[in-house]
Amino acid sequence: MAHGPRSAELRPISDRGWTVRTSHHVLTSRWLNLRSDACMTSSGSAIDPYYIVETPDFAHVLASDRGGRIVLVRQYRHGLGDLSLELPGGMVDGGETDILAVAARELREETGYVGGRMEILATLSPDPARYTNRIHFLRAYDVEPGPATPDPTEEIEVVLTSRAEALRLVWTGAIQNAPHACAILMGLRD
Amino acid sequence: MAHGPRSAELRPISDRGWTVRTSHHVLTSRWLNLRSDACMTSSGSAIDPYYIVETPDFAHVLASDRGGRIVLVRQYRHGLGDLSLELPGGMVDGGETDILAVAARELREETGYVGGRMEILATLSPDPARYTNRIHFLRAYDVEPGPATPDPTEEIEVVLTSRAEALRLVWTGAIQNAPHACAILMGLRD
Repeated sequence: MAHGPRSAELRPISDRGWTVRTSHHVLTSRWLNLRSDACMTSSGSAIDPYYIVETPDFAHVLASDRGGRIVLVRQYRHGLGDLSLELPGGMVDGGETDILAVAARELREETGYVGGRMEILATLSPDPARYTNRIHFLRAYDVEPGPATPDPTEEIEVVLTSRAEALRLVWTGAIQNAPHACAILMGLRD
Repeated sequence: MAHGPRSAELRPISDRGWTVRTSHHVLTSRWLNLRSDACMTSSGSAIDPYYIVETPDFAHVLASDRGGRIVLVRQYRHGLGDLSLELPGGMVDGGETDILAVAARELREETGYVGGRMEILATLSPDPARYTNRIHFLRAYDVEPGPATPDPTEEIEVVLTSRAEALRLVWTGAIQNAPHACAILMGLRD
């Protein structure tokens, strides 16, 4: 049932959540679980099954070097079925709570860039409907080059761009990864 | 293996894609399929299984009325487990090729807003690593209010904001849906 227009300032209506009546995993694996929930909406509609994808959180970094160049990575992404230009980063392993340390490690492993200073930029959901996970985006400044040590299954090409070029790659659609494109716009705004 | 820094202008290296040796569906459903691929990277590393989530494409609309107010929707999202402030829209059904018509239909059903003019803003991937689908984002101007006819399982609250407020909701993290936040930044830039 639709509600009338409201101000965005109003607090969310907490009683609109779904009730989960039964739940089981269709599949569990290291990288991804698929969960099947039998749900009831707050107005009494049954939604069964509703599939949820459980994956770990990720940390990705919008890093710039001392010259202001942005550090991107290009790699094959099997969902997309094509190369994808993205922000370096990786999975937050179970139990890791120091997101800045995770981000610094993933930046170093994938690109070799280290040092500088880092701050949290945003924490976002790639798909609130299906995904349980969040992506933490960090902003790093004054990073310095060093040797990369990527995972053997990762074939990662480091791509350095100017700030203006990084923005242009988003505006033109050359960066197809929506959460990463969002972080670039958030991190490089005037 | 890491490659050295390259210009973003270089064409993607087409021989870096993975080869799929075998593939089967763990689950198929109306909304989502889970596919398991046995893959080989271009450098010869085996990745088996690699799980892919197949879902339909979506179309979402950044719409403004004649007064310049932005039309957002707030609804419960079960992956997030909370209410989520988003752009109205919905699934592109199989065989539908007129994305603008899909977007107009979903905007009308969810919010009641109709009319005006609409153009394509961007087509992005919510997760290039795992998701096969794309989200088409449209920009609509001068839409006019009317009766909403949401699906019985959808409890959708229409939220009207100023342009500045919509941007502020992204900057402050109040809009957690990363692809939708990206589309708002792309559509409302100066």
